[in-house]
Amino acid sequence: MNDHKVHKIGVLTSGGDAPGMNAATRAIVRTATYYGLDIIGFMKGYYGLVHNEFIELNNRSVSNTIQRGGTFLRSARCQEFRTEEGRKQAARNLEQLGVDTLLVIGGDGSLRGAHLLTEVWQGQVIGLPGTIDNDLAGTDYTIGFFTALDTALDAIDKLRDTADAIDRVFIVEVMGRMAGFIAQGVGIGGGAEEIIVPEYAFDIDTISEHIELAKNKGKVSFIMVLAEGAYEGGAMVLSQVLTEKTGIACRPCVLGYIQRGGSPAALDRILATKLGAYSVEAALQGVSGVMVGLINKELSLTPLEKTWTEKKPLDAYLEKIQPILAQ
Amino acid sequence: MNDHKVHKIGVLTSGGDAPGMNAATRAIVRTATYYGLDIIGFMKGYYGLVHNEFIELNNRSVSNTIQRGGTFLRSARCQEFRTEEGRKQAARNLEQLGVDTLLVIGGDGSLRGAHLLTEVWQGQVIGLPGTIDNDLAGTDYTIGFFTALDTALDAIDKLRDTADAIDRVFIVEVMGRMAGFIAQGVGIGGGAEEIIVPEYAFDIDTISEHIELAKNKGKVSFIMVLAEGAYEGGAMVLSQVLTEKTGIACRPCVLGYIQRGGSPAALDRILATKLGAYSVEAALQGVSGVMVGLINKELSLTPLEKTWTEKKPLDAYLEKIQPILAQ
Amino acid sequence: MNDHKVHKIGVLTSGGDAPGMNAATRAIVRTATYYGLDIIGFMKGYYGLVHNEFIELNNRSVSNTIQRGGTFLRSARCQEFRTEEGRKQAARNLEQLGVDTLLVIGGDGSLRGAHLLTEVWQGQVIGLPGTIDNDLAGTDYTIGFFTALDTALDAIDKLRDTADAIDRVFIVEVMGRMAGFIAQGVGIGGGAEEIIVPEYAFDIDTISEHIELAKNKGKVSFIMVLAEGAYEGGAMVLSQVLTEKTGIACRPCVLGYIQRGGSPAALDRILATKLGAYSVEAALQGVSGVMVGLINKELSLTPLEKTWTEKKPLDAYLEKIQPILAQ
Amino acid sequence: MNDHKVHKIGVLTSGGDAPGMNAATRAIVRTATYYGLDIIGFMKGYYGLVHNEFIELNNRSVSNTIQRGGTFLRSARCQEFRTEEGRKQAARNLEQLGVDTLLVIGGDGSLRGAHLLTEVWQGQVIGLPGTIDNDLAGTDYTIGFFTALDTALDAIDKLRDTADAIDRVFIVEVMGRMAGFIAQGVGIGGGAEEIIVPEYAFDIDTISEHIELAKNKGKVSFIMVLAEGAYEGGAMVLSQVLTEKTGIACRPCVLGYIQRGGSPAALDRILATKLGAYSVEAALQGVSGVMVGLINKELSLTPLEKTWTEKKPLDAYLEKIQPILAQ
Repeated sequence: MNDHKVHKIGVLTSGGDAPGMNAATRAIVRTATYYGLDIIGFMKGYYGLVHNEFIELNNRSVSNTIQRGGTFLRSARCQEFRTEEGRKQAARNLEQLGVDTLLVIGGDGSLRGAHLLTEVWQGQVIGLPGTIDNDLAGTDYTIGFFTALDTALDAIDKLRDTADAIDRVFIVEVMGRMAGFIAQGVGIGGGAEEIIVPEYAFDIDTISEHIELAKNKGKVSFIMVLAEGAYEGGAMVLSQVLTEKTGIACRPCVLGYIQRGGSPAALDRILATKLGAYSVEAALQGVSGVMVGLINKELSLTPLEKTWTEKKPLDAYLEKIQPILAQ
Repeated sequence: MNDHKVHKIGVLTSGGDAPGMNAATRAIVRTATYYGLDIIGFMKGYYGLVHNEFIELNNRSVSNTIQRGGTFLRSARCQEFRTEEGRKQAARNLEQLGVDTLLVIGGDGSLRGAHLLTEVWQGQVIGLPGTIDNDLAGTDYTIGFFTALDTALDAIDKLRDTADAIDRVFIVEVMGRMAGFIAQGVGIGGGAEEIIVPEYAFDIDTISEHIELAKNKGKVSFIMVLAEGAYEGGAMVLSQVLTEKTGIACRPCVLGYIQRGGSPAALDRILATKLGAYSVEAALQGVSGVMVGLINKELSLTPLEKTWTEKKPLDAYLEKIQPILAQ
Repeated sequence: MNDHKVHKIGVLTSGGDAPGMNAATRAIVRTATYYGLDIIGFMKGYYGLVHNEFIELNNRSVSNTIQRGGTFLRSARCQEFRTEEGRKQAARNLEQLGVDTLLVIGGDGSLRGAHLLTEVWQGQVIGLPGTIDNDLAGTDYTIGFFTALDTALDAIDKLRDTADAIDRVFIVEVMGRMAGFIAQGVGIGGGAEEIIVPEYAFDIDTISEHIELAKNKGKVSFIMVLAEGAYEGGAMVLSQVLTEKTGIACRPCVLGYIQRGGSPAALDRILATKLGAYSVEAALQGVSGVMVGLINKELSLTPLEKTWTEKKPLDAYLEKIQPILAQ
Repeated sequence: MNDHKVHKIGVLTSGGDAPGMNAATRAIVRTATYYGLDIIGFMKGYYGLVHNEFIELNNRSVSNTIQRGGTFLRSARCQEFRTEEGRKQAARNLEQLGVDTLLVIGGDGSLRGAHLLTEVWQGQVIGLPGTIDNDLAGTDYTIGFFTALDTALDAIDKLRDTADAIDRVFIVEVMGRMAGFIAQGVGIGGGAEEIIVPEYAFDIDTISEHIELAKNKGKVSFIMVLAEGAYEGGAMVLSQVLTEKTGIACRPCVLGYIQRGGSPAALDRILATKLGAYSVEAALQGVSGVMVGLINKELSLTPLEKTWTEKKPLDAYLEKIQPILAQ
């Protein structure tokens, strides 16, 4: 299978951590070992690449990691890698280390970095979609999204207990600057009365009317799920605006960083494992400049640029039926 | 949309309960109400149909149910419905109640019943895939499968703690008489050393060697996931056989009914909600004798018979890479 | 046992909801039924008492409630009950309904209300400690505290994943205006580097030094747990102050209302069940003006006033060893 | 504080693993370090002591362990330590290593071992109660018990979903050979219709009548919790017996080893942390031959022998009210 004479693989995790990154790293390491390749892990994302901080990896290094949240390779922002000089330094390190293929697990910012690296380095670069936001084209789902959904949903279930008990209106802010996948998913799954996402316009007066109408109909509780990027100032500001407009106390609840943590859900581990193994096999076939993904249950390769230039749409049917369900 | 002049819908849940059945019922009720239809729920599956036990349903009946495990419409075995006379009685009840469309949420046995009903009743019959086993063709996933995966995985994570601490070999039996979807999913997700499913042959001597080899290599723990239908007698018998063959104590762990319960995971709620809403819309379009499903992210209709005659395959790539990952 | 000729009991839940309130109500109802008493539940706390909103309760009303968060009797603020006229109206309602004993499940505000009621009503009034804050004397633990601990701890475990992965400082705000029980418990349980509670003074410069010191020692992550009442403005303001002082980004995370929800933990169900049953037995023995509690594993009665005038201390040994553990 | 001139501490975990063992080890290590002591950990319990397998421990060794299930020091059975010669070998190893104090975290078997060691070794031996069974006198609760309660309760909640949906009778077997603490706790917390523990006699005919009576009253589901040691053959045999007697299908569910695993609950982490720190402080004060514990919120020392010769009673009030609650 090793048509391209790959001998040594480097792997890094970059950007915000996502549950399942360790599962992906584990699958990469074990698949690489199976095919007789050497493998090293750069620490703290591109920072480790620029500063030559890395560890040797083997099958034992990844024992007992599949169920761990976070990323044991760690992650960080790296200003230097944003400069061409930084990326050239990274390329020099890769050459000196004899790395043939670099695997980058991360979100759109990380994949942009991977793309820029291909301009200054001759090796193969392959991305894996690792972000809770699910905002990358080229894959139906990103590693971490499923766990974030369950974490946010668990929080909404808990809020519903209080909302039901004491007639509360909650504005729950979930992650998603540019994309509403988490908001739509937990909004539907949590039976939210309202879902606000960056992808669709909304009218604040209509929402106010919905709140007032619900109160007049005696609907006990009202939960609105807001993607953080859909309203300037997020739930903190929106709750003030709606409280003023309606005269009904609207309470903000910002879920924040808890959405990134936790032991990965089954589907994130399975997705991470498949994509991890496949990224090594794709490397052996000589591909570069692409992200591995899963589209309609098939493993796929997508040019890196397309993963952030193409907009992956929300589920239109869920958008259509949400008001019906929230009656 | 109501081309077919549907006025009244009946819904029932049948067979083993599955997390998300309530979410499906909720979506059915609210969508039916939205389209101005009457809706009733038969209690205890086909038993309620034969014995005319039902309740009126409205939007309030399904408040605060989306997150509940089990099924508030309840379920039961019904011998009478297995006879033609029983099904004719059911048909008479449906006619007297003025039900135009019956929605059946359940697994393959329940859908067979739905199919037989179409032979004696002129109304529309539409199935929804509700079973943790995921063993129905015509849909990528069945309602309840995702939650069962997470429940079984959580159990395996806990067993791993002990297996690691005290060098144990565990044979974990998960549900799945004819299909290995749960076993494969949690086996991969739990990093199992061995996965045994009904779909693939296995050799007990090879497995014994794997256990002995792992022990000789000093691998701390060894977890084998067994689909209940893959070995006569299940984990209880297999653990005895393997203990004898290897001289290493292999402990059985039968997860059993806990896999059916629990608050549904996000994806089960979303799937149940989509299929519930869509089943009502499909009814309004006049279809009958089909199961609603989701294939490659698209809503779909599949003739009832095909859902159990066609065999849905396990994930072949996971099957291929499992031994690589378990190194 | 019924020395005092009790015939009819009323029960209400008041103030913020707490996991286990339903378990307490269930135990009250079943114990009352066992002793042949009638029992009604006032809806929305004192609001239902003043407005005569109530439901009849029996053993079936409380089936399948022990595991539910929130309170099915609901809760609310009631301005009228803060006036003497409101309380007199409540007393008239109790007399007309023939209620002999009122059981009030709630926190210190609710117990104050119960105490005031004894001034205008001749019946028996018994309180049950229902609040996640654990800030009532007269009982080692309050109903809801254990669940809130586990919920907050789960959030901190998740934050730790990210904090470890990307070197973050998190200021986690937990509930507790006047008391640091949750903060101390999850701070110790989560291995927090710093715990700030209302009971102990703290010096912001010392904390800044700790953060800087940890960074200099290369300690990967730093988590500070803050009881909401321990710092004016909470985590939002404190994180800004510390970021400025240290030059290290300190991120706030306000857990908020999720701490009140969720299925009650085993210990909350057990405590609620014991106190619920005991409150009915105490009523039959003729006591009034007291709160039931559990002190050193023994059921106890404490005058209502003492429950809020006496300050229950934090665990001094945990306070002493916390800096040792956070090394 | 170091009156007794302790310089070096050894720690081991022994017997079945229990959630919180790592938290105890962490507290021991950090407290020892704080007091300037050396500390080593013996691997696999007494096996490591006899075979001189150990690791040096420091503050970093126990980073990020407080939330982990299992025990990173591992555990094992050790036949050799059951012989006097084995214990003498252990004593020789301790002397050669210069260990002054040995801390043993485990259940009654482990503490018996600790006691026997004092007969052949002059150093200090202090036990910590680490077992999910809670069957040690000298402490209100043992490390691991709280987590096991929540794990078993979660399973029962899930079974209740199915039991309610399809009218099932479940016999749930939980751990507890000699003691019914888990059974009583989850039986009350799960609202079980019947609880069978080793401490109290039971009559199988009475139980059969209860099952028949419940069915006749139309009670939907029936859950019986059985401590494994309360009936010869456990739930597998009892379910057959009861099925025959009643003619109603009684299904067994053996929770098994999952009760030992999982991330420790808040209370187990707090208890483990307190006892871990206190065991080191007790060592510095020169005590030996005792187990540290927590009785009525106070840290305590109990002679090792007393911890297994004295029988800790179940909660009598819960025993009394259980039939009232299960109406």
